[in-house]
This record gives sequence, structure tokens and C-alpha cells, in this order.
Amino acid sequence: MTVIDRCPFKVGSLLSGALDAITDVAGVSVGHCTLDHHAIQTGVTVVRAHQASHYLNKVPAAATVINGFGKSVGLMQLVELGVLETPIALTNTFSVSAVAQAQIQQAFANHPEIGRAWPTVNPLVFECNDGYLNDIQAMRIEPAHYQQAFEHASPLFEQGAVGAGRGMSCFGLKGGIGSASRLVSVASANYTVGALVLSNFGKLQNLSWLGQPLGKRLVQQAPRPLSQPPDKGSIIMLIATDAPLDARQLRRLSTRAAVGLARTGSFFGHGSGDVALAFSTAYTLPALEREPMPALALLHEQQLDGLFEAAADAIEQSIMSSLWCARSVIGRDGHQRRALRDLYDFKSDGELIF
Amino acid sequence: MTVIDRCPFKVGSLLSGALDAITDVAGVSVGHCTLDHHAIQTGVTVVRAHQASHYLNKVPAAATVINGFGKSVGLMQLVELGVLETPIALTNTFSVSAVAQAQIQQAFANHPEIGRAWPTVNPLVFECNDGYLNDIQAMRIEPAHYQQAFEHASPLFEQGAVGAGRGMSCFGLKGGIGSASRLVSVASANYTVGALVLSNFGKLQNLSWLGQPLGKRLVQQAPRPLSQPPDKGSIIMLIATDAPLDARQLRRLSTRAAVGLARTGSFFGHGSGDVALAFSTAYTLPALEREPMPALALLHEQQLDGLFEAAADAIEQSIMSSLWCARSVIGRDGHQRRALRDLYDFKSDGELIF
Amino acid sequence: MTVIDRCPFKVGSLLSGALDAITDVAGVSVGHCTLDHHAIQTGVTVVRAHQASHYLNKVPAAATVINGFGKSVGLMQLVELGVLETPIALTNTFSVSAVAQAQIQQAFANHPEIGRAWPTVNPLVFECNDGYLNDIQAMRIEPAHYQQAFEHASPLFEQGAVGAGRGMSCFGLKGGIGSASRLVSVASANYTVGALVLSNFGKLQNLSWLGQPLGKRLVQQAPRPLSQPPDKGSIIMLIATDAPLDARQLRRLSTRAAVGLARTGSFFGHGSGDVALAFSTAYTLPALEREPMPALALLHEQQLDGLFEAAADAIEQSIMSSLWCARSVIGRDGHQRRALRDLYDFKSDGELIF
Amino acid sequence: MTVIDRCPFKVGSLLSGALDAITDVAGVSVGHCTLDHHAIQTGVTVVRAHQASHYLNKVPAAATVINGFGKSVGLMQLVELGVLETPIALTNTFSVSAVAQAQIQQAFANHPEIGRAWPTVNPLVFECNDGYLNDIQAMRIEPAHYQQAFEHASPLFEQGAVGAGRGMSCFGLKGGIGSASRLVSVASANYTVGALVLSNFGKLQNLSWLGQPLGKRLVQQAPRPLSQPPDKGSIIMLIATDAPLDARQLRRLSTRAAVGLARTGSFFGHGSGDVALAFSTAYTLPALEREPMPALALLHEQQLDGLFEAAADAIEQSIMSSLWCARSVIGRDGHQRRALRDLYDFKSDGELIF
Repeated sequence: MTVIDRCPFKVGSLLSGALDAITDVAGVSVGHCTLDHHAIQTGVTVVRAHQASHYLNKVPAAATVINGFGKSVGLMQLVELGVLETPIALTNTFSVSAVAQAQIQQAFANHPEIGRAWPTVNPLVFECNDGYLNDIQAMRIEPAHYQQAFEHASPLFEQGAVGAGRGMSCFGLKGGIGSASRLVSVASANYTVGALVLSNFGKLQNLSWLGQPLGKRLVQQAPRPLSQPPDKGSIIMLIATDAPLDARQLRRLSTRAAVGLARTGSFFGHGSGDVALAFSTAYTLPALEREPMPALALLHEQQLDGLFEAAADAIEQSIMSSLWCARSVIGRDGHQRRALRDLYDFKSDGELIF
Repeated sequence: MTVIDRCPFKVGSLLSGALDAITDVAGVSVGHCTLDHHAIQTGVTVVRAHQASHYLNKVPAAATVINGFGKSVGLMQLVELGVLETPIALTNTFSVSAVAQAQIQQAFANHPEIGRAWPTVNPLVFECNDGYLNDIQAMRIEPAHYQQAFEHASPLFEQGAVGAGRGMSCFGLKGGIGSASRLVSVASANYTVGALVLSNFGKLQNLSWLGQPLGKRLVQQAPRPLSQPPDKGSIIMLIATDAPLDARQLRRLSTRAAVGLARTGSFFGHGSGDVALAFSTAYTLPALEREPMPALALLHEQQLDGLFEAAADAIEQSIMSSLWCARSVIGRDGHQRRALRDLYDFKSDGELIF
Repeated sequence: MTVIDRCPFKVGSLLSGALDAITDVAGVSVGHCTLDHHAIQTGVTVVRAHQASHYLNKVPAAATVINGFGKSVGLMQLVELGVLETPIALTNTFSVSAVAQAQIQQAFANHPEIGRAWPTVNPLVFECNDGYLNDIQAMRIEPAHYQQAFEHASPLFEQGAVGAGRGMSCFGLKGGIGSASRLVSVASANYTVGALVLSNFGKLQNLSWLGQPLGKRLVQQAPRPLSQPPDKGSIIMLIATDAPLDARQLRRLSTRAAVGLARTGSFFGHGSGDVALAFSTAYTLPALEREPMPALALLHEQQLDGLFEAAADAIEQSIMSSLWCARSVIGRDGHQRRALRDLYDFKSDGELIF
Repeated sequence: MTVIDRCPFKVGSLLSGALDAITDVAGVSVGHCTLDHHAIQTGVTVVRAHQASHYLNKVPAAATVINGFGKSVGLMQLVELGVLETPIALTNTFSVSAVAQAQIQQAFANHPEIGRAWPTVNPLVFECNDGYLNDIQAMRIEPAHYQQAFEHASPLFEQGAVGAGRGMSCFGLKGGIGSASRLVSVASANYTVGALVLSNFGKLQNLSWLGQPLGKRLVQQAPRPLSQPPDKGSIIMLIATDAPLDARQLRRLSTRAAVGLARTGSFFGHGSGDVALAFSTAYTLPALEREPMPALALLHEQQLDGLFEAAADAIEQSIMSSLWCARSVIGRDGHQRRALRDLYDFKSDGELIF
């Protein structure tokens, strides 16, 4: 196992989990499949809520569409029923269909009754447009790539220019996959809030780093103008928690992703598909009517503030981590996205030097 | 050109257009591609709002999700931006990805700038589950089938067990594609409201025909129990109008589809993906910022009631038409859906005989 | 106690509860305060979910706004938090403020900590416009009238031209308060779905009675044209159940009110504020964080269809009951709304004579 | 006219209008009525979109409910119809009813047809809970106070502890009314985006001032612990623009208020009613069907980013301005909120001294 890179800058006052990643939420695992070959700079990332069949053991979930300029699939049913029933997949905009198809085929393979005696399965795929670095029109992602990412899912996973993040750009720099976690104490119980983002948004001049105008400094100090960002961004923000919340509460939790996003310098641009999803691992809901429904006490509504703050912080931290961990990538037509750390010399003590 | 079958029963007091079909709205055309081979009983239906590029000339549109148990793609962006930018495609649940892919490829072929200099394209595909008659797991729909349906689009089109409707069931009978139109006079202007449905919902005992409990009679008179409906239904309801409405008003119009649906005997079942979409052909919105935006007076809000009534009536009529026009189909594993007219002898004067 | 009038016509095949009223849901009670003095024909109706403090014992609830042309208060917070924390009040459009004030004052009186150590209270008041019969601009409803209705709340209550229904019109006839209930068996458990409406919508010619075009017959047989309906309608539809549902499921249940409404002849007119609310009495949620949260198994999502059908039927039945029970009323400027039963001779066997 | 105080700290790179206030949008005016007498520390603020009847000349508008823990009235109809038809009123939580009543009475007085021949009027009142400084249970706001605020509406208006802001707290400091504006150039046209907030949210330790952790410094340097904030906050955020946008676009604009809010240190707390509304003064919609509808070209969707950035900046600036302008207030039970400028010595050059 490779050593996992981590961003040493810390958002907020809450403690992180052991990995400072979404996989600090017990049971959650993340896998990548990365395509890195000349003009093809893209991939698939899969987030699993647990190790069992997501179809049979549905996971309570909800979403907030902050800016709906995007092509994700699966949200309509997720909103109606309050569950996800496949792992969550991330990929590029024009590979959504291939990945959704893979999810359907995987569900068939495991449960041949689906679409016949049993209800159909709802694929859940989110996307950003990596067309600056990746030849997105080539549509090279195939169902097998989803399967690979799925099989590689592990509590330990790389961040940055990997998986679906391979070709993504963030604030005109190299973006991609980032993750973080925060610990929250509610009454006498301890909960974890984990986050994972696919970052592909923003203009460099707007980048805010722990409140500091890092983007402006980078623009000013650049020896020559940095390449302009593509016209379309997006960010997908996933939040996991082991706190017992229902779908309505998870929707509220997912909304707080907007806070972390705004703090980094986004103003929810017109062309940016900004979508947040939250799920709980505290219980699952059985697909089959004959199975017993869980009977558990949810958190009292007045106990949510700690989780809200944790979600905001973990999302901000995840975006920073996606920038911190990403290496420079050269892709289609020689297009390049530079790594933040190649452009800026962060001192080890964590203070920005302006 | 074949003679188009029509349902002789008339809903409501408003006049129909010349074709009593969604294509009475000038510019709208409909095409089918039907797969009919043993266990494969499925297809694609395409509704075009106009003859030009939908990407360049975006069509104002909005949707109402009555019951979100469904796998349609494209609604998130449609709701955010208030336009559709591809033709509307209908197919079976597990072929959504193939058809979405076809829409993306078609957009590329016409506009290579998409996903690079220009924003990505938003596929718009609706679905119902035809798994009772069709071997849905075979996933036989390919992008070429979308292309065929697209190319066959015409003001004249067949209804019933054709295109996406080939394998659909409605009230335990053969359902599928149905269409109708109504004419509305607002102030001194005349407008057309057209509807097209993909019907695949309902229990026979609930079927209401112009207010009459036709389903109960059919259940009672059946020599042996009719085969039970599959566990999952759905209906997609499209409304077109040439009235100048914006997306907010179109959303209101689309909501009235629920009225027509309820009148036929649906109670918006848990497993039924009941989705309505409305679009206007009165103007288009340019994709390119340099093109001029249209400046037209919308209808006054108090002038919408006629359109609302027309939408409700046209949807009810479309559902009836889908039942009326559908021929019996035998599909997967010898499963059969009988045509309404094979089971019931409607007198020519339009009175039900109970 | 007076004998409670009941509509002898029965919607659907499900059984009714003992009272065929919303109060068949154990714990629910309804009270009226009626103002009937010349041009003042209005009132307040209160629906209590239980006998205890609704603030301390919050009731899971959700709503569907079918057509948002209305002035109800309290829905924003109800949607966010998924509970109601006052009884539900119904009144006329311009008395919403007075009734909301009464709810706030009542909450203060019982819990002086409100708005100080404890969170504020969220009034919940729905309205229709009774301005045809009632001098609505006089704004005669005062907080004391809410208090009276609250205190009169009982399992037995009158329907028709009483309470908030005093001045309401429905299909050009006398409308007002109507109620009904249906029994549903889910797995091995039995549940009750109750409904109560405040009916004030519709054009006579559209009135559908168990699927029969009763409105058209009334228009045709009228010796002289019936007075035209006012320009604005509305209907408030409340659904209560003892089934254990959470707020997300209750929202789904409330949506089915649209089915019952559509069946009676509404097309959700532009000017009609059509709003539905559903609540469950199966459990309550404590206001105070220190109280234990309930831990109960909700119904499985696939077990909702029976409740959905019951809700649709109970709403249709409630609207019929509001028409059946209402007596003719003469109000402002000699305006009159005739009772349905004064205009039409229903035979005792329940068959319409056309 | 008194000299209007202004916050010298500037958010972002866009220029401000002449007043750096919402009233830089031509036609918009703001008026206050302030109650300042011992335990009564509250008031009403009115924002008028133009000088004519808002009922006859409806203003395109939309809203985003960021966190719906609040008691505002009027949003349901505003969302459905996309217009406001009264001035916007702000007050304390338990005075919403009195102010709504005042709006109805004012509409009657000007248009006696309302509620009879004409549709009813939709009051639009937003609120925050000022119960820490103000004896909110006393409910001292009366309809006359709304009328006074309405009559005082002017392009020049005070900010801080005035009007509805009189008793509000923000980050544990004195908050209240704040305003700002930004200028945006789109294609060859210039537009103004103005904002006005009623600030009553946040914990001191979270206060972020132009990205700097000002709150933490204030907590650290406090000689004794600062009084704790009340358990419930809220913020109302209004955005005005002269850009020609429709209701859908205005909803998108209003969503960007969340960005400005997040930047100041909010994480959208559970108990904080965070609501944003945006309206356009570019055109009005006639109440009467016989009046002509406006025919104007809206902004192209790709031209919105400048307005989005302006809205985010103007909201952040408005919150800062509400803190900057507010004077310390002592109210109920000797409760005090200190002014930011009494606690912190900002150097004149605009650099924070930590």
C-alpha cells in the first residue's frame, strides 16, 4: 500500500478521523480506475457505503442541487425514496451512460430478479466535465472500468489526479478527488462526518485558502498568464456519516456542503453543476418487504449543528486536499494543469507567505 | 402513409386539432423505432419540438415529478435552466443509457464544439419498465435505434404498441403511445395544447373510462382471471403548446397532467414513475451568447386556465388513445397483454354498455 | 350532541371507519367556531392531532403544494423540519394573521419559555377565500374565535357550512368542511387514513360525482343560469393516519390528495390554492433535546399503496361530503350559495337519475 | 438628512454604486420604523421595489430557502407566480401577523376590489427573532408601524440597529440592517445588484471578516466571556437588480446569497431561518388581464455570472455593514449587545490588527 498524501493545512477546530478521509466512516470504501494515456485523461471513482449489496440493503440518502447545470443520473428517485441502492459512481460528463449501464449490469448479475419479480435498480452516477485535459468526445470509459474501480474500493485510497479526478481542473489548477473527515460529539455519542469531492470548478483569482486570497497572489506572481479555465466547471460533494439520520435530515446535512464550497472561492457559477449528496451508514433499509424494518432513534433535530459544522469543514478540507494532492497533468492537445504545490511554496509551518 | 387509428371517445368539451395529436402543435414531430422479435418487444420514440438543432435553438420547458420512482435522465438541468436542448426520447428503463449516449453522439456530430468550446449537451430520456413483455435485461436498444426514430419523426405517427410503447402495459391491458390535442382561445388568440403519453401503469380494476368504471366491468366479465400487472408501472406525459409561456408557467402547465392521469384511475402508485414535461414552441432560446434573445409578451397568468383544462383533457385522452390503439402483444416467456378492444365491445355510438 | 349528517354515496372499495371522518384516526379531534350574522359568514376550524401540547409533542407531517396561489402560513418550517407544532387551523384568507396570532398566544400561555429559552413556535394556518358570501374585508375573525374552535374540538363534529367552511363555495354550490376515512390492511396490521377538506373551488359544469357528470346536468336543468363562481377558489386537504410514516413518506401520502381532487372535477385552476398536508399520529417528536427520541419501525416503502389509495378515496369522499352536508347560505349583498341537495333530488338507493 | 454611516472595508473587486446600498437600484427605497423603549427594542423595515402600487404592477421575484426554520409569510405564492405584489416587510418573529395585516389593509385601502372582483393580495413578511434584546412576547408592533416604515421609504436610509434590525444580534454582537451594492457590466450594458440583510445569526467565534478570523480574536481578547447568543438566529437576504431577469433566473440569483452568508462564518445553523429573495426592477407585470404584458429580452443565461458574483459580494458586504453600522443596544432584562466597533479597534487603513 502506498503512503497516502495528506494536506497539512487544517480547516476549523473539529478533530479529524484517523485517515482524515470519508473512509473514517466505518464501512465506507473508495476505489479508482484511472485512464492515463495521451489525450485520454479520465477515470471512474466508486464510493461504497458498505460491503454488502446496496440493492438489498438500501442506504438512507438525500441530495441538494446547488446549481443544476449537470448531467448526473439517479437523483429523481433518490429524492423520492430517500435511499441509494447502488454504490455512488463519479466519472466524466459523457461517460455517465457507460457507468450507469455498468451499475445496472452489476445489479443484474447479483440479483437476476431485478426488473422482473423485483423492482428495477436506480443507477447513481455523478459527473464533471474534464474536457480540457481529456478527449471527452472519445468516450473511452467502459462498464469494465466501473467494475475495476468497484473492486479496488478500500478504506485507503489516493487523492488528487486519480479516478474520476484524473482530468479535472479546479481554480485553473489541477483538481480532482479530495477527502476529509471530522469527529463530532453529540450528547454522549461520537459520530464521524466524512466527505469526498470531485473538484472541477472555479477561477484562479477567486481561490481562497483558509480565508487567504491565495488565488490573487498566484495570479499576480505568475511569470506569464496562466491558462484560462475551461468554460464549464462543476463539483460533486459527497458526505457520509454514521450518525442516525433520516433522509430529511440528510438533505439538511447535504445543504451544508455549500458552505465549504463557498469558503474556497466558488460563487456557484452558472455553468458549474454543484451537487451535494449525504448518506448515513447507521442503518440500512431492506429491499424486500418481508425483511424487518429497522427501529432506531434518530438524532434530535437540535443535535444537528455539530454535524452541520463538520460537513462544512470537511467539504472545505476535501477541496483543499484535492488541490494539495493533485500532480500536474498534461493531456489532450498538450493542455496542462499545474499542481498547486508546483506553483506555490507553502512553508512547513502552515503560514502562507504573501 | 397508413391511416392513423383514433379513439372515437372524446374527453371534455374543448375542440381537438386536425390530427388530435401532439403534432397539431406546429413544428412538433414524432418518430418511432420498434423492436418486435420474440422476447424483444421494445423500442424508442422521439418527440422533436422543431426541425432545427435543439442544441442551438433551445426550447423552453419544465417538468413536474408526480412520483419520482423512475430513472429518467436530464431533469436536473432542465429544471435549473428551463430549456430542453435535445429532442425528447422515450424508451425502456434499462435502455436509457444507450439512448442518452445516442443523443450525445448526435449532438457531437452536428456540433463538434460541444464539450470543448461550447457547453456540454444535456440528454433527455424518459423511461417505463416493459419487463413483463420485453426481455429488458437483454438491453437490445442501441444508439442506432434512437437515430432511426429521430429520422422517422413526422407529424403523422402511429399510436399504441409502437416505439417505446411496444412492450408497455396499462391497467393490465396493452398500453403504450397515445396522443391527443385541444384548441384553446385566449383573449383573441388561438392556441393548441398537444399531449403524448407513454402509458405503463395501473390496475385493471381501477380503469375509469370517461368516468365509467370500465375496469371493474372487465374484471367481472372476464371468463378467467386476467393476468396480474407487473409490480412496477410508470407513465411519461409530454405536453406541447404554441402558447408563449416561460419555464415557470410551463411547470404549472405540466402539473395539470396529474389531473388527466388521476381521471383514468391512477392513484400515483408507489412504484409508478409518473413524470410530466411541458414545452412551448412559441420561441426558442439561442445557445450562443452572441445571438439575440427573443423579446415576446408571455401570456398573462390569468389566461392560463384554458390551457390547464386543455392539458388535463389532452392527457386523459392520450391515455385512452394509448389503450384504444394498442394491439395485443405476446412477448417474453409467452407473456401476453390483450388489447382493450379485443376484450370489450364498444358500441359505435360511444355509450358504454354495462 | 346532534346527529352527524353523512353522505350516503361511497367512493371506492375500501371500508370506512366508524365515523367516516378524520377523527376515526385515534386521538384526532375537530372543532369549529362559526360566525353567521348577515354579511359575516365565516369561521375557524381547528384540527388537533392529539390532546397534548403540540409544541412539546411535535407531530410528523409534510405537505404538497399542488397550486401555490394561496396565503397559508407555516409551510416553510413544516417542510424543513417535518413536524407540526400547533394544531392545524383553517379560516378565511384575510383572517390568517388573526388566527396565527392566536396560535402564538396560546403557545405562550402554555409555555412561557417560547421565544426565549425555547425556540419560537411555528403557526400553521390554511385559508380559502370566502369573499362571495362573507364580507372578507371586515376581518371579523379574532384570536378568541380560534380559541373557541380549539376548545370545541371533539371526535364528533359537523360538516358543511360550519367553521371555516361557513362562507365557502364549491362548484358554484355551497361547500365547506367535509371529512371521511378509510381502513387499510398492511401486512398483518390495520391502519386508518382520515381526511378533512375545506372546499372552495371549481366550476359547476365540471362537477363529477362518482364519475358522473353531475355538474353538466345541474347546469342543463337549471331554470335560470346559476350565479357564477367567484374568480378565486382553493381547497385545503388534510390527511391523518395512524400508520408509522416519516415526513418523507407523509409528503408522498399528501401528494395523493391531488387524485381525489382531480376526480371531482378540478383541473387545479390558476387561482385556486390547492394545498395538501398529511400527518401521522403513530408517534411524536419531543421538543426538548433531553427527552428520548422514539424508536419505531416505519412502514416499508412497498407497503404504501394501500394508504395512497385510501388517501385518494378519502379526499374525494370528503369533497363530496362537504357538498352533501352543506346547507344553503345567504350572505353579503344577498349573495347566495345553494345546497347541492336543494338543487338535485338524489334517490335513496344511491343511483343518480339523469 | 443625517449622514449615512458606511463600512470602509470592501468585499471583492467589483465597484459599488453611489450609495453602496440596495437603493442604488433605481426606484428601490427603504424605510424604517424603530421602537426603542426599555424592553421594547424592535421595529419594521420596508423595502419598496418602486413607487407605484405593487399590487397593480407586480414585480418579478423568486426566493431560495437555505434553511427553512422560520415563519416568513408569502413565499408559497411568490414561488408559484414569480412575483411580489406588496412591498417587502421585515420585522420580528411574533409581529409577522400584525405586519401582514397591515399590508392587506393597505392594499384594500388603495384597491377596494381586492378579495372581491379582484384576486386577494399576498402579504410578504420576513422575520428574525429579536427575543434576546426585545420583549418579543409583548408583540408591540402594530399595523401603524408598518405604515410608518412604508411612508419613510427613501433612497437614503440608516443601517444597523434600526427598523426591524433594532433588536437583532449577529455573531453575538449587535446586528441588524445592512446594505450594499455592486455594478456589473454585461455585454455592453451596465447593471446594478443591490442587497439588504436583516442579520441575526452566528456564533462570535465563527465570525470571518474578509476571510480573517475576527471572531476568534474577539473571543480570545475579551476580558470576560462575552454573553452567549440566543439559541435561535436567522438572516433575511434581499437582492434587487435592474437586470432583466425572469423568476427562474431570479431564483438562481437568490441562491448566491448563500455564498456571501457562508463567507462571513455561517454554516446555516439548524435554528437559523436563512432565506434569500431576489427581485428585478427591469419590468413589472400587470395585475389586470386587460393591460399589455411586457415584451423584453431577458439576459442570456451565460451572462449571469457577473450578477451571481455581485450578489455574493453584496450580501457579504451587507452583513459586514450591518455589524459595522450597529450601535450597542441594551434591552429586555438588561440584556446587551455590543457594537463591533466598540469591541475592536479597526485601523483606518482597513488592515485588521491581530
